[in-house]
Amino acid sequence: MTDDSTAPKILDLPIGLDTTGEREEFDSLGKVQVPADRYWGAQTQRSLEHFNIGDDRMPKEVYHAYGYVKKAAAIVNAKAGRLPEWKGKLIEQVCDEVIGGELDEDFPLYVWQTGSGTQSNMNVNEVISNRCIQLVGGTLGSQTPIHPNDHVNMSQSSNDTFPSAMHIAAYMMAIGKTVPAMRKLRDALEQKSRDWDHIVKIGRTHLEDATPLTVGQEWSGYVGALDDAIAEVEHATHGLLKLAMGGTAVGTGLNSPLGFGDEVAATVAALTGLPFETADNKFTAQGTLDRLVRAHGGLKAAAVTLYKIANDFRWLGSGPRTGLGELTFPANEPGSSIMPGKINPTQAEAMLMVCIQVISSDVAVTIGGAEGNFELNAFRPVLINNYLHSARILGDMCDHFREFMVVGTKVNEDKLNENIERSVMMVTALSPVIGYDKSAAIAYYAIAHDKTLKEAALANGVTEELFDRVVNPLALTKPGMASA
Amino acid sequence: MTDDSTAPKILDLPIGLDTTGEREEFDSLGKVQVPADRYWGAQTQRSLEHFNIGDDRMPKEVYHAYGYVKKAAAIVNAKAGRLPEWKGKLIEQVCDEVIGGELDEDFPLYVWQTGSGTQSNMNVNEVISNRCIQLVGGTLGSQTPIHPNDHVNMSQSSNDTFPSAMHIAAYMMAIGKTVPAMRKLRDALEQKSRDWDHIVKIGRTHLEDATPLTVGQEWSGYVGALDDAIAEVEHATHGLLKLAMGGTAVGTGLNSPLGFGDEVAATVAALTGLPFETADNKFTAQGTLDRLVRAHGGLKAAAVTLYKIANDFRWLGSGPRTGLGELTFPANEPGSSIMPGKINPTQAEAMLMVCIQVISSDVAVTIGGAEGNFELNAFRPVLINNYLHSARILGDMCDHFREFMVVGTKVNEDKLNENIERSVMMVTALSPVIGYDKSAAIAYYAIAHDKTLKEAALANGVTEELFDRVVNPLALTKPGMASA
Amino acid sequence: MTDDSTAPKILDLPIGLDTTGEREEFDSLGKVQVPADRYWGAQTQRSLEHFNIGDDRMPKEVYHAYGYVKKAAAIVNAKAGRLPEWKGKLIEQVCDEVIGGELDEDFPLYVWQTGSGTQSNMNVNEVISNRCIQLVGGTLGSQTPIHPNDHVNMSQSSNDTFPSAMHIAAYMMAIGKTVPAMRKLRDALEQKSRDWDHIVKIGRTHLEDATPLTVGQEWSGYVGALDDAIAEVEHATHGLLKLAMGGTAVGTGLNSPLGFGDEVAATVAALTGLPFETADNKFTAQGTLDRLVRAHGGLKAAAVTLYKIANDFRWLGSGPRTGLGELTFPANEPGSSIMPGKINPTQAEAMLMVCIQVISSDVAVTIGGAEGNFELNAFRPVLINNYLHSARILGDMCDHFREFMVVGTKVNEDKLNENIERSVMMVTALSPVIGYDKSAAIAYYAIAHDKTLKEAALANGVTEELFDRVVNPLALTKPGMASA
Amino acid sequence: MTDDSTAPKILDLPIGLDTTGEREEFDSLGKVQVPADRYWGAQTQRSLEHFNIGDDRMPKEVYHAYGYVKKAAAIVNAKAGRLPEWKGKLIEQVCDEVIGGELDEDFPLYVWQTGSGTQSNMNVNEVISNRCIQLVGGTLGSQTPIHPNDHVNMSQSSNDTFPSAMHIAAYMMAIGKTVPAMRKLRDALEQKSRDWDHIVKIGRTHLEDATPLTVGQEWSGYVGALDDAIAEVEHATHGLLKLAMGGTAVGTGLNSPLGFGDEVAATVAALTGLPFETADNKFTAQGTLDRLVRAHGGLKAAAVTLYKIANDFRWLGSGPRTGLGELTFPANEPGSSIMPGKINPTQAEAMLMVCIQVISSDVAVTIGGAEGNFELNAFRPVLINNYLHSARILGDMCDHFREFMVVGTKVNEDKLNENIERSVMMVTALSPVIGYDKSAAIAYYAIAHDKTLKEAALANGVTEELFDRVVNPLALTKPGMASA
Repeated sequence: MTDDSTAPKILDLPIGLDTTGEREEFDSLGKVQVPADRYWGAQTQRSLEHFNIGDDRMPKEVYHAYGYVKKAAAIVNAKAGRLPEWKGKLIEQVCDEVIGGELDEDFPLYVWQTGSGTQSNMNVNEVISNRCIQLVGGTLGSQTPIHPNDHVNMSQSSNDTFPSAMHIAAYMMAIGKTVPAMRKLRDALEQKSRDWDHIVKIGRTHLEDATPLTVGQEWSGYVGALDDAIAEVEHATHGLLKLAMGGTAVGTGLNSPLGFGDEVAATVAALTGLPFETADNKFTAQGTLDRLVRAHGGLKAAAVTLYKIANDFRWLGSGPRTGLGELTFPANEPGSSIMPGKINPTQAEAMLMVCIQVISSDVAVTIGGAEGNFELNAFRPVLINNYLHSARILGDMCDHFREFMVVGTKVNEDKLNENIERSVMMVTALSPVIGYDKSAAIAYYAIAHDKTLKEAALANGVTEELFDRVVNPLALTKPGMASA
Repeated sequence: MTDDSTAPKILDLPIGLDTTGEREEFDSLGKVQVPADRYWGAQTQRSLEHFNIGDDRMPKEVYHAYGYVKKAAAIVNAKAGRLPEWKGKLIEQVCDEVIGGELDEDFPLYVWQTGSGTQSNMNVNEVISNRCIQLVGGTLGSQTPIHPNDHVNMSQSSNDTFPSAMHIAAYMMAIGKTVPAMRKLRDALEQKSRDWDHIVKIGRTHLEDATPLTVGQEWSGYVGALDDAIAEVEHATHGLLKLAMGGTAVGTGLNSPLGFGDEVAATVAALTGLPFETADNKFTAQGTLDRLVRAHGGLKAAAVTLYKIANDFRWLGSGPRTGLGELTFPANEPGSSIMPGKINPTQAEAMLMVCIQVISSDVAVTIGGAEGNFELNAFRPVLINNYLHSARILGDMCDHFREFMVVGTKVNEDKLNENIERSVMMVTALSPVIGYDKSAAIAYYAIAHDKTLKEAALANGVTEELFDRVVNPLALTKPGMASA
Repeated sequence: MTDDSTAPKILDLPIGLDTTGEREEFDSLGKVQVPADRYWGAQTQRSLEHFNIGDDRMPKEVYHAYGYVKKAAAIVNAKAGRLPEWKGKLIEQVCDEVIGGELDEDFPLYVWQTGSGTQSNMNVNEVISNRCIQLVGGTLGSQTPIHPNDHVNMSQSSNDTFPSAMHIAAYMMAIGKTVPAMRKLRDALEQKSRDWDHIVKIGRTHLEDATPLTVGQEWSGYVGALDDAIAEVEHATHGLLKLAMGGTAVGTGLNSPLGFGDEVAATVAALTGLPFETADNKFTAQGTLDRLVRAHGGLKAAAVTLYKIANDFRWLGSGPRTGLGELTFPANEPGSSIMPGKINPTQAEAMLMVCIQVISSDVAVTIGGAEGNFELNAFRPVLINNYLHSARILGDMCDHFREFMVVGTKVNEDKLNENIERSVMMVTALSPVIGYDKSAAIAYYAIAHDKTLKEAALANGVTEELFDRVVNPLALTKPGMASA
Repeated sequence: MTDDSTAPKILDLPIGLDTTGEREEFDSLGKVQVPADRYWGAQTQRSLEHFNIGDDRMPKEVYHAYGYVKKAAAIVNAKAGRLPEWKGKLIEQVCDEVIGGELDEDFPLYVWQTGSGTQSNMNVNEVISNRCIQLVGGTLGSQTPIHPNDHVNMSQSSNDTFPSAMHIAAYMMAIGKTVPAMRKLRDALEQKSRDWDHIVKIGRTHLEDATPLTVGQEWSGYVGALDDAIAEVEHATHGLLKLAMGGTAVGTGLNSPLGFGDEVAATVAALTGLPFETADNKFTAQGTLDRLVRAHGGLKAAAVTLYKIANDFRWLGSGPRTGLGELTFPANEPGSSIMPGKINPTQAEAMLMVCIQVISSDVAVTIGGAEGNFELNAFRPVLINNYLHSARILGDMCDHFREFMVVGTKVNEDKLNENIERSVMMVTALSPVIGYDKSAAIAYYAIAHDKTLKEAALANGVTEELFDRVVNPLALTKPGMASA
């Protein structure tokens, strides 16, 4: 459609509609009444009525990301002359409001909607259209001079914009919130690892007493695990930098000009400062959601790591009198409504539950990811909702776990020393000298006769000199073999 | 504590606190500032600050259920004289406000909190305490004359009240929303099954053409599956009728009088009109969440059934020109932002996504259920949140799927007849007469030579008389064997 | 096909084919060479070559169940005169060999095959056909006088026989192995619960010290949980008693006589002594696998229960010197290749891993169950393989866990008594007398000053008389409230 | 232990023990009778008796990998003089037999055993010990001159050797089987994509008719998805190159010399030709199994991709008369026992089931991965068994799917052309010229009046010139916008 409209004056109007009652809007299926104080149009209203299922709303981050998508498209379309410059500028201006969250209340749709996200795309198109119309003094619902499909959605489809918005939203959440929170937690753990690098404790394998290590070594294991987990989240998130834009309806790019995808991706990159690029194969990018599946896989793997750390914490801090009692946690709140004075490892419990949720969401993401058909994976809303939820609660939880648990955790050196004195598993150090079988006999003897390891060793023919030389807790935390 | 207080006058004050700024509250760990216009106390405030993780709030249904728990406890305690009658009555009155949802805004806590739900229990205790205090003209935060622990929580622990509230909330949601919605969907499908019991179509196995059946038979299969699914949800939900109340801290009932659990359960039953009973073994009821795990298993199994039905729908309605094209769905909304005139099976897609979410939540419920330790399963919040979410979205979705898809679905008889004419799989009816191997040869011949089945049969030596007698589509939808 | 053949003599030949090299077999697609010493035919051979994927073979239990299906069909067909009596008897005789496992080596097919199980059905048909042929001195591969499709498969389809065989195999495994093993474990736990009903210990919630209970009470919680789990497995298994037989290709019963499904189910019931019945709706029974999904759900819920019990075990037995140390397990094997004298809770670890496997298999069963299309769920092999695997390893594991761990477990009374003396959480008993807040202050004091509870109570104004009367460990394991 | 033994003569004895009956073996718990014709010792025998659960045996690949571990350790120990040279050489020689699979029958242990894999490590130690003893003419069971712990296990623990063997076995399976099979499948798909790059078809979104694309484009989407999936499997597998060796019991390296881990990893690298390295942090490497969790995550993501491709296949090939009918698959076997002439997409079904199994195994790997405690994750057997199973069946399945389905698939051009003629969604091309709303009206008109798109367009005011110029199927498969 040739578009030779001349630029109207753009009014300086704040966001908001003072009208009450209803306004008539229309789409290709006919007329629809919408609340007069809302920007949305006919298709948003239809979706609201047909899909008010539960309480799950499409996350706001998707709309903010859509702001970038629509803005970039408008810029590219205007630059090429397909869209009059003033229309491009006007759309850009409203997109900034979308990006800034100022129009959030006009994006009310539910997660459980069409599998392509078309209804949310049209919600964005309609809101931008009407806000533009308001800014040029037009009639809301007239779709003139800015039409939701012909202008806001120009050269686009839900089928390429929605996965693009998904990638942008997911990338920003993971890199902006999840990874920094994980890194800060890692750093807090590393600080403790350094602080406690000289404190020896009895290790445990199969929950059973084993040979000693330092508390610092134990915590360095958490740090190492988090280093790996962070690297994987970053790697998996990196795959989201590829955008489907330019594929339009089925990946061919029909109704978009040649090079549109590259230009839009480059523009999104410029607008966000993040290295987005056009996807290599648009049929892959629209027919699958594999990159989001893999990205959530990174979060799920991080949940595995965090689960183990938080679980160790609550066990090491169990007690105060009848548990392992190695760690003491900050008393953030009374622990029981009936048992006075009780303190519980609540941050660790919350972390475990968050990790379980993320692990289970991976199943949703996986099934939805596998179920795509032909040119479109129509399970997008359930994937992006689970992804953003996981990334957000993991990030928040790392922050809280660090601030309210890790930082204030103390180590009970008395208990650790008592354990060192009572444990028999340091017999392992004797093994290279006197052999496994004799060493085992000493250990069984100690347990059976309720003796210390030294008492048992001496009773079984080990000299005190040998024992004292070989069974040195701190020395046992390092490689190196004793010799007779 | 002997309690010989005399009854004050109960004021007729609407819910609400006009004060601004902050109010001092305290708990066993010390003083805390809370917003002056909120009823909650110190422990709620601590939780709000330590656990503001994501957006997931403890579902309101849990608090409404807690209203029944606290009311029943107050009734039983007052009747036995442990609680002065006026205190009991006062607590009862406020519990009715809780049950009615009037105090919902004072229950702001997050899902990701202590694993026992203690913080939500204390939230309830504090709000009831302060609302009672308001009603007798006392000083908010004084915990006098109604103390959150000593009175509202009397003879109780989070450890027995929270799982009781979980069971009550879950039961009410499943029986009040999920099951009726499933049943209405089943009835709508059955109506269609009856309407279309005379229309013959080609069946499909492995997605490939098979022998004929009626559309009514096909849909009766959906009805039969839903009958089974509903029965299982009811069975699984039935297990929730057992309440942990009376177990207090670790299941022994310490600090509760003998028979307390039975009396409270009977009172909850009387208040709700639902057949709740005391759990047979309180150590089981508090140390595990197995009954909720099984209850969610019922929902998950229903999701499996609904997935299959919705999936069949969208495939049977695929087209309009290049798909299976057997069904036509109501055009609830334009289907595409780029492709004009497109109608998509959006309700079916939403149903598939809802089912995927429920299936994945089952993993969360399962892992959390397995992770209990000793006298308490400390994964309660993640379980109840997933349960209520699943039950609600399944219920809502069944309603929407029925109203906006099933009821308006039409069958394309022309297409079905065309399929009947073109299919070769009715050759199966010849098999008992001429043998499997000759029948197979006819079928291969028809496909290879692009013939109708009849043409192929006649070309391979079957008489027209035999063919017409045996290969009768409607007759083929019933048992009974052809004979030569 | 009219069949007026006269009965040949049935030879008394043991199972086995002495021939070497290959034999020609055929099916509707042509000729195939098979090993001359095997009974199977063309379709089995084709499957072996096209589907030799991994090591997973269709479980033998499926074939044994198929023996009942084929035998029952032959009986019903012969009784009605559709099959000459001698053919019926001959097939029956060979079915008994199938049921008895004597032909197991002739059922070599893989799990990863056609989704309907047709290849395994044809494997059964072919083997029975050839074994029958052998017994009447015929030519193997001639399909005469017993044809795999026309006679062994008479009035049947894979589509109704395979799910019938699945239900029979699954029911027999669950009722024959899993449930009895669970019940014996439950009884062993109950015996311990009774043995130790007088031994008081400190309970734990959130892993933290809580109020006391008896060891017998704790273990009664395990018994109660297993009672529920067993009831659920039985309930879920009960759903498998409905058989699809009679539905044939798409559920209509085409090519089967009226009443065939009822008669076959009744015959299977008579042969097995188990109350099998015909499914109410054959479209449901063949289009879904929902009953197997629910049946596995019962196993999964049992895995949740068993996980918690085994997990408690390994923690309670952790030590011997630095863990909880409440239980001692039998020393079945040396625990470490490097640490002499180490004993680990290996049976509990194996149980945890088995439960994890069952929990994960539930995801396979669930997804496969949801994925059925139209008249056939074509994910049968993955479902039955996972079901039988879960039922078997759960059963075996319960037996081993009981025999090698539970029965020999001992309780360390010295440790329990020491815990009682050191714990401060019995302060809870003071709460109804002196109030929650004062009680909390005593508890905090005890921990902060490393005092016993009594020392702390006396230092905070509680009289010795009150303390000794109220804080009585054994009394605290029962309901009943202290009074001042 | 100083070891100044002199080298005996090494006999040239084939593998095998001719003795019958039983032989006495011993370990630190006492004497055990083992079958005299087996090399294993006391601990293997104990495990066999205590853990014969189900049919799942520890995969042979674990033992072959253990061969490299033990060989490398012997080389490093001998080089440093800790082990006499002749003992080192002898152990090396037997390790080669282990690596070559020649001793497979002596590794009979079950998956469900101790969570550390100690029993399998001891199985390896015992078998190597006894085979060495045989080769020097010693007495089996004497543990002299090669002791299973003191020599074969020298400087090692199960805790560092088992995860090392897991990584080696998993890496070799993924890189040796899974990735090559995926790559060959990818290449076969790419060949088809090229072959069919000129054939136009109607695309489908939401299963509904959409705009056209070429078959080549559609298949290029599969290729692009597999490229990504392969890259992810390689990335995830790469993480397995880090070995725990050198950490011994709890990660400290106790009883191993300084640098042992580096030297062993370098030796394994030299022996296998694969770039194995020592893990950066042994506490991470033994306390978690995170790298295996992530590696399986790569397989799971690949299963998602393969599921989508196989699912598309079976739908595109549905028919032959009443389905989508775009593809024809090779007729590998008769499809039905009752319906003659039926051909089903069985390879695709098998692929779907394999993918479901891999997806569900990811849940086992994830839960087991999360459950590690302190210095050891004791869920190793369930993880490695699921990993190797997934990698193997995915690899095998890709090979079969390619060979028996993809390569022989044909495209039905007649059907595609018919679809092109009948579809109305090419109306999309008109949208940029006449606007979305008018285009939609044309589409609705065509469906409502059963017209072709052209008929409908002309009836609604579009000129034939415009229509023919804009609505050109092949042109619609590329970017570029029509203009009026």
